[in-house]
Amino acid sequence: MGELGVTLAPWRPAVAHALHRNRSLVYSRYVQLATVDEYGRPANRTVVFRGFRANTNQLLFVTDRRSQKAHQAVIQPWAEICWYFPKTREQFRLLGQIRLIAVDTPDPADHQLRQQLWQQLSDPARLQFTWPQPGAAAAGREAFTGDPPPNDEPVAPFCVLLLEPERVDHLELRGEPQNRWLYERRGDTWGSQQINP
Amino acid sequence: MGELGVTLAPWRPAVAHALHRNRSLVYSRYVQLATVDEYGRPANRTVVFRGFRANTNQLLFVTDRRSQKAHQAVIQPWAEICWYFPKTREQFRLLGQIRLIAVDTPDPADHQLRQQLWQQLSDPARLQFTWPQPGAAAAGREAFTGDPPPNDEPVAPFCVLLLEPERVDHLELRGEPQNRWLYERRGDTWGSQQINP
Repeated sequence: MGELGVTLAPWRPAVAHALHRNRSLVYSRYVQLATVDEYGRPANRTVVFRGFRANTNQLLFVTDRRSQKAHQAVIQPWAEICWYFPKTREQFRLLGQIRLIAVDTPDPADHQLRQQLWQQLSDPARLQFTWPQPGAAAAGREAFTGDPPPNDEPVAPFCVLLLEPERVDHLELRGEPQNRWLYERRGDTWGSQQINP
Repeated sequence: MGELGVTLAPWRPAVAHALHRNRSLVYSRYVQLATVDEYGRPANRTVVFRGFRANTNQLLFVTDRRSQKAHQAVIQPWAEICWYFPKTREQFRLLGQIRLIAVDTPDPADHQLRQQLWQQLSDPARLQFTWPQPGAAAAGREAFTGDPPPNDEPVAPFCVLLLEPERVDHLELRGEPQNRWLYERRGDTWGSQQINP
């Protein structure tokens, strides 16, 4: 274990390898994030993977405070990511709890992380956070125009969403038969075993 | 409305168009299916779209009776599919209830559908239904060999999974700004409106 952080989880090299081997496909960084809504029904949407938080095994995403997933993160923190890599034909399922870092975070490190992810966004991505209420009846086109907000200070709806995996299921479809490993966290350590596909 | 079936839902042409324009990518038929497990946590995995059931708006998939999703379909029928099309950069989210057609189905039409989907499977796909218990500690390689079962009669674990959409959220990332439509079913009719992305 490093002085500054936690041990790199044993599934991390496999994710890094998949990201590398699929790097020619921009959408290999798109994952499907499932949460549970206020009626107990699943909700599932595509989000962009923004890397791991330094010295942790937490996956980083950005979201709008006004979106359903931000709302769901607060009322029901369990989430499962499904990450399919087309080129290497492998799938990771990452189950864990999500946490939101919003404009009013009291934590200095969280505040800094939010600034940092905002600064890394493209102009069109920043602009989206100034658009009218997501999911409301369509506003006129003029509500979507204008200049992107400056990249020094995040706008209020901008949030970081972190997923802390508890269980990771890695399936390689290319194996013969197929290879599948299950990783489970127990406190600070991870167990792993090979399981049937 | 046709004599034999229901009205084609208004989102069907958009799905058909996306399938056609993305047909060069085999994985444009792979979708992520989210369900809710017995602890109320989301579960999310990739499944292969097998078409629509004739004269319905139901999406067809196949699964193993011994899998978690087959178990979850019975205890908690709500599911949401996330379907991302890489080439046209559009996403469909289909929320609905799932239903399983298993070996003991008493319904003749369901029985026939199960036969038909079994017969359309490739040899390697049929072989998977003879493999040892999915998710159990890895069996030896010899448990995965053998000939695929004949294609006339499905093996017992083989199930058809149907999703009947209640709500469909279609997002086109390529629009300017982006285009998003929401379709909602009310009994036999569908309402639709354009909403903010």
